[in-house]
Amino acid sequence: MPDTQPLVGVIMGSRSDWETMRQAVEVLEQFGVAFEARVVSAHRTPDLMREYANEAEGRGLEVIIAGAGGAAHLPGMVASQTLLPVIGVPVQSRALNGLDSLLSIVQMPGGVPVATMAIGTAGARNAGLMAVAMLAVRRPELREQLRAFRERQEQAVRSEPLE
Amino acid sequence: MPDTQPLVGVIMGSRSDWETMRQAVEVLEQFGVAFEARVVSAHRTPDLMREYANEAEGRGLEVIIAGAGGAAHLPGMVASQTLLPVIGVPVQSRALNGLDSLLSIVQMPGGVPVATMAIGTAGARNAGLMAVAMLAVRRPELREQLRAFRERQEQAVRSEPLE
Amino acid sequence: MPDTQPLVGVIMGSRSDWETMRQAVEVLEQFGVAFEARVVSAHRTPDLMREYANEAEGRGLEVIIAGAGGAAHLPGMVASQTLLPVIGVPVQSRALNGLDSLLSIVQMPGGVPVATMAIGTAGARNAGLMAVAMLAVRRPELREQLRAFRERQEQAVRSEPLE
Amino acid sequence: MPDTQPLVGVIMGSRSDWETMRQAVEVLEQFGVAFEARVVSAHRTPDLMREYANEAEGRGLEVIIAGAGGAAHLPGMVASQTLLPVIGVPVQSRALNGLDSLLSIVQMPGGVPVATMAIGTAGARNAGLMAVAMLAVRRPELREQLRAFRERQEQAVRSEPLE
Amino acid sequence: MPDTQPLVGVIMGSRSDWETMRQAVEVLEQFGVAFEARVVSAHRTPDLMREYANEAEGRGLEVIIAGAGGAAHLPGMVASQTLLPVIGVPVQSRALNGLDSLLSIVQMPGGVPVATMAIGTAGARNAGLMAVAMLAVRRPELREQLRAFRERQEQAVRSEPLE
Amino acid sequence: MPDTQPLVGVIMGSRSDWETMRQAVEVLEQFGVAFEARVVSAHRTPDLMREYANEAEGRGLEVIIAGAGGAAHLPGMVASQTLLPVIGVPVQSRALNGLDSLLSIVQMPGGVPVATMAIGTAGARNAGLMAVAMLAVRRPELREQLRAFRERQEQAVRSEPLE
Amino acid sequence: MPDTQPLVGVIMGSRSDWETMRQAVEVLEQFGVAFEARVVSAHRTPDLMREYANEAEGRGLEVIIAGAGGAAHLPGMVASQTLLPVIGVPVQSRALNGLDSLLSIVQMPGGVPVATMAIGTAGARNAGLMAVAMLAVRRPELREQLRAFRERQEQAVRSEPLE
Amino acid sequence: MPDTQPLVGVIMGSRSDWETMRQAVEVLEQFGVAFEARVVSAHRTPDLMREYANEAEGRGLEVIIAGAGGAAHLPGMVASQTLLPVIGVPVQSRALNGLDSLLSIVQMPGGVPVATMAIGTAGARNAGLMAVAMLAVRRPELREQLRAFRERQEQAVRSEPLE
Repeated sequence: MPDTQPLVGVIMGSRSDWETMRQAVEVLEQFGVAFEARVVSAHRTPDLMREYANEAEGRGLEVIIAGAGGAAHLPGMVASQTLLPVIGVPVQSRALNGLDSLLSIVQMPGGVPVATMAIGTAGARNAGLMAVAMLAVRRPELREQLRAFRERQEQAVRSEPLE
Repeated sequence: MPDTQPLVGVIMGSRSDWETMRQAVEVLEQFGVAFEARVVSAHRTPDLMREYANEAEGRGLEVIIAGAGGAAHLPGMVASQTLLPVIGVPVQSRALNGLDSLLSIVQMPGGVPVATMAIGTAGARNAGLMAVAMLAVRRPELREQLRAFRERQEQAVRSEPLE
Repeated sequence: MPDTQPLVGVIMGSRSDWETMRQAVEVLEQFGVAFEARVVSAHRTPDLMREYANEAEGRGLEVIIAGAGGAAHLPGMVASQTLLPVIGVPVQSRALNGLDSLLSIVQMPGGVPVATMAIGTAGARNAGLMAVAMLAVRRPELREQLRAFRERQEQAVRSEPLE
Repeated sequence: MPDTQPLVGVIMGSRSDWETMRQAVEVLEQFGVAFEARVVSAHRTPDLMREYANEAEGRGLEVIIAGAGGAAHLPGMVASQTLLPVIGVPVQSRALNGLDSLLSIVQMPGGVPVATMAIGTAGARNAGLMAVAMLAVRRPELREQLRAFRERQEQAVRSEPLE
Repeated sequence: MPDTQPLVGVIMGSRSDWETMRQAVEVLEQFGVAFEARVVSAHRTPDLMREYANEAEGRGLEVIIAGAGGAAHLPGMVASQTLLPVIGVPVQSRALNGLDSLLSIVQMPGGVPVATMAIGTAGARNAGLMAVAMLAVRRPELREQLRAFRERQEQAVRSEPLE
Repeated sequence: MPDTQPLVGVIMGSRSDWETMRQAVEVLEQFGVAFEARVVSAHRTPDLMREYANEAEGRGLEVIIAGAGGAAHLPGMVASQTLLPVIGVPVQSRALNGLDSLLSIVQMPGGVPVATMAIGTAGARNAGLMAVAMLAVRRPELREQLRAFRERQEQAVRSEPLE
Repeated sequence: MPDTQPLVGVIMGSRSDWETMRQAVEVLEQFGVAFEARVVSAHRTPDLMREYANEAEGRGLEVIIAGAGGAAHLPGMVASQTLLPVIGVPVQSRALNGLDSLLSIVQMPGGVPVATMAIGTAGARNAGLMAVAMLAVRRPELREQLRAFRERQEQAVRSEPLE
Repeated sequence: MPDTQPLVGVIMGSRSDWETMRQAVEVLEQFGVAFEARVVSAHRTPDLMREYANEAEGRGLEVIIAGAGGAAHLPGMVASQTLLPVIGVPVQSRALNGLDSLLSIVQMPGGVPVATMAIGTAGARNAGLMAVAMLAVRRPELREQLRAFRERQEQAVRSEPLE
């Protein structure tokens, strides 16, 4: 993966989401997938969000990962303004533990899909893996990396003692 | 209320929300408040939504009522792009009965509020009344109409037989 | 904003809600909006609540912000006894994390609306901003302050580094 | 039970609750307990509610049954304004099936209890039985009626064929 | 209240519920109402529960308060085996925060009511107050104590400073 | 399976549960497992329930299937009074769709387990299959029937056309 | 899109899911994307599911869409046995309206992602669109079709009258 | 119980589930029931899971206890690949407190049952007891141990002081 042009854009609604979204970035780094990461808020920076969404395809991004909590409009609004596949990560919110984030992200109306992951860090990690899987469909060497990852993951469980 | 310039903009994410949002409009008509009503979809017409939100203040609107179901991003996204107060109506959704709509509308992050009403037709009716109450703060004749409305409402209950 | 007559009444059901509701007050102070704040309990001081609601309009208040947790009847009961717009803040409750507070405040029947905000401190902060937005409709200088606030908010996000 | 002075006041927030609350009344009739029934709305008739609550004790009522749906403030607000025991019935609401009604009624703060029943008609029927049980503590003949009712209920189950 | 014969039986499903149920007992002590308190488990001591329920009326108890968490069968099962009014307290459970306790206690079928209180300590405190209210219907001096309690409660709120 | 002595006792809290519980019985009939079925109500017939539970083991039953809705105490209370394994079926309730039934049955405290199935008819059918599986552990011919059932089930899916 | 080799595999846990999943297929047909559709049950045909998942990549599929209701293990289990991206559709279940389906599909542990869509038909339709979006990243002509689809969708809203 | 051949297989989806599942193992040890315990992940080791399920019956196991959190597919997938009774334990998850685990395990479709226990440690402990109860149906000495366990449990409650 010698690309230096980012293939994956990782955005999040607030600086406080970074603790969660860092998991997605770590997966991309582990697979050597070029990415960019920044804060883009649907509610506080709607113009920035629109620019980001509108320009993503032209800038060569192939997938967008968007994390947000609470009303969590970022993934859906970005998805409505780009043709790229958008992966949504519901960040665990304070009062409702991310159930609000999850429903706000996943319950998109027919016409504009968001590929929604689990609430919190597991979801962020899986967003990275889903982005890799999408990219890997046409990149055999990435597919092989993914295969190796799955095998290591399987071996780790098989050899894990209980105590 | 001789205004013909609309003071209240009533928008909704889908034609199917009209059955609910009609309740808001009927209240505005009953109080003689000039309004406009149309479909504006956050996900299917993001540009239209942005134009609507950006131009609302300049066009003389004083309040926006926005109804949506499911992920229901319309009220919050409009609120993020106008300084006018935005009233949100969670339309009852098919699978989750509007709990998704409610959480998506009400759980806005600090910085961009949406004045959220109850799920469904009662909420739409109350959106109309809340818009009237906002306008009435500086319009004594509207305040008196509201007072009369409340009195009629009270009398209706007091004289209502059980069977 | 040279007013010294309070324009916004901030009330809460219990002294323990102050930690949350303080956020609303801080916004009002930031915008120079005159306000008053006190404990008024729907259940422990129903007469005080009624007096407060009945006299609010005559005393020159233009908006009431009411915060409460659990059964959270304060916002709705005040709304039933005044024509002023009432903004409700669901305080995060101990067992159900504010879901009870939210439903008790937002699910008002047709006829008496409460402008409901998010659960907890984000909601309290937004209650302050919604009050400012309502007042600003007819106060150009407040509208400009709100515009400046939104711009600063946007700049803060745009210049925020991830790490 | 030769009383003609009502011992139980049955109130409900809306005419539409009568279909549910009728179950409570039928139990009281079955036990020969004198009662009164009427619509009293917390939100549409707050003054009537206050008068009702304040005068109940002096008028000789010993128990109040209050049914309401949605935000359902009636039982708690009546309880805050009388020393009589108040039994609350969560009426099944349209969108949230009475979960909102239940939480609004049961999650009262320390200091003002409401004896909450199940959602809907089973709860209304049980409200009648709970009122009878409260009255029966000091009325031996009513206690015997209750004992007979339980025995008939048990026999009905024991002799019920499956098909 | 010179009674030494217990009028209120306070039972709970587990020793760990005592931290919650202690609130009910403190109210009874504050009002000078004679009571007894013990652990009675529906699931671990079904025979003890049955004896307790069957003998309560004959032993002179007038009200039973039963607290339990999780499946929380104690209040409903005691109610099914006594004619005395039973007040149920949903103890806050570990995983579901008492929502399971609440539904298990409140959703009784028609025929056997449980007077359900709020989840946790507020509910336990209110169980004590509800027991007092039931007893007070025919005990004027207890009614006066309750009136004084409510007045003190009101004064406490009225004189409570925010900071 | 020439047994005529019932091996499985199928009980339910109300005649209205029969529509659901009939599914369990049909599975037992299909496998030729002797059973008995009747209404036993935890709340309306607590003594009958106790007798049933206490005598089940001595009467030769090996498994009990108990279905109930709402507060749904039957499975747990039977389990507390027998050593036989008890399978619980949450019957779909009117207001809360069986979520109350499910939590009341499954959230048993440590010490007395109930083997809980899915809400409604699928759960009832599975209760029958779980009873068969328990019996089959030591009955090779029943194990073979179960194997054949699974194979038919698999073939049915494999040969099922979409349209 | 002259491909006749299926690029998308559409599977569902039961014949009864077809009414929902048909929406996904209609989108694929509309875009001219070759697909195959069949019933594959995680629980009733685990071997078939494993074969399907294991062979999908080798057979030239690039995306799998899996719909299921209730415990809804199909999407996650297929995802665990293929490197292809898997899109999950929570089918609306009878008792819990698809909330169970949604949580079972979306709450995958870190390591194996499923791209989850909304509950029901809107989700199925979006699954088709998400598959198209994934395929379109490297297929310019499909990207153009998607762009045209979005434009038609936008025009449809813009020209939609309310009545 | 002189068996050394394991009768109960205890498996869990992740090493982190061991803190919960240890409770099941402690019960089995207390009753002298031979068991084995290991990590088997539905998602990370699907082949291992299949082997485990397929071989369990032949290896002499009579019951399987499977614990998992979140999407929690392990119990249902094992159940689909063995004829042995499978007991499922919903491990308390981070965001949704185990409600997701519970629904994913219990809402199995008709045809493949899982005997579901309570969320968390109480459920794990009860899984051990349910396994013992299943084994005890045909093992009189184990039945006697269970009887003694229940008696000790009852005595512990009866002699437990409140303070």
